[in-house]
Amino acid sequence: MLSDAEYMRIALEEAEAAFEENEVPVGAIIVLNSQIIGRGHNHREERHDISSHAEIEALKDAARHLGRWDLSGATLYVTLEPCLMCSGAIIQSRVSRLVFGADDPDRGAVVSKVLAFEHFKGDSDPLISRGILEKESKDLLKRFFSKKREENK
Amino acid sequence: MLSDAEYMRIALEEAEAAFEENEVPVGAIIVLNSQIIGRGHNHREERHDISSHAEIEALKDAARHLGRWDLSGATLYVTLEPCLMCSGAIIQSRVSRLVFGADDPDRGAVVSKVLAFEHFKGDSDPLISRGILEKESKDLLKRFFSKKREENK
Repeated sequence: MLSDAEYMRIALEEAEAAFEENEVPVGAIIVLNSQIIGRGHNHREERHDISSHAEIEALKDAARHLGRWDLSGATLYVTLEPCLMCSGAIIQSRVSRLVFGADDPDRGAVVSKVLAFEHFKGDSDPLISRGILEKESKDLLKRFFSKKREENK
Repeated sequence: MLSDAEYMRIALEEAEAAFEENEVPVGAIIVLNSQIIGRGHNHREERHDISSHAEIEALKDAARHLGRWDLSGATLYVTLEPCLMCSGAIIQSRVSRLVFGADDPDRGAVVSKVLAFEHFKGDSDPLISRGILEKESKDLLKRFFSKKREENK
């Protein structure tokens, strides 16, 4: 069994894959019984798909793997605080634990702009941990946006 | 140009298609310049896909049609109040208007459990109308859940 930081390192590899594909670098993995059963990264631009955030890609990947969308018992690792859409998907997927890296002050729906999980207490009450590899996650995002600014000059 | 009730009738046809497929009957369409550019219904069970709600299916269909996920100017019609996940997707898709049928007191994130659009004011401020073909939307859901209860006896 790996530590949270070790699993988050693998989620960061997913984020780096998004970076290489010119997508906002956010990555996620799903772990159940110490096994990685889903992974995903942001593909929104390439796929013209609003729902193609890292978390939803990883939830879908894990659900394909298990043949069910109910992911009770699983942990979702994601490099950035989930947005409203992804928080809703996480609540509905019934994952038991959510671990994220950096906070997202503008869009985050766990601790920043909305406390989504507080509103749906009782439906799904995952344990929440934050700040795991926060600096690495933030640095990758900063690097991406400064590259974008350079390209747009 | 059709009226809201006429467009909602078409969203209800999508909900009926979900009913026939043994999925919770919710349907949605996207209209831009009086044209239907996207349609969708709930496919969650068949596809084992947490994100396969009517609204996200319709947003994806419209985005495929236009080749972009930004749906500024468009109206989304959906038979049931959007959940948190779908409200997040609607905000991010930048649709200009949201019209829904029945309220969803347990899961609704527009006027019921969370006022999602209030939290993200400024990001996306669609005009919101509700109660269009409310009774028909509710009746279809009731019919579905009573059928399910019969089957489970």
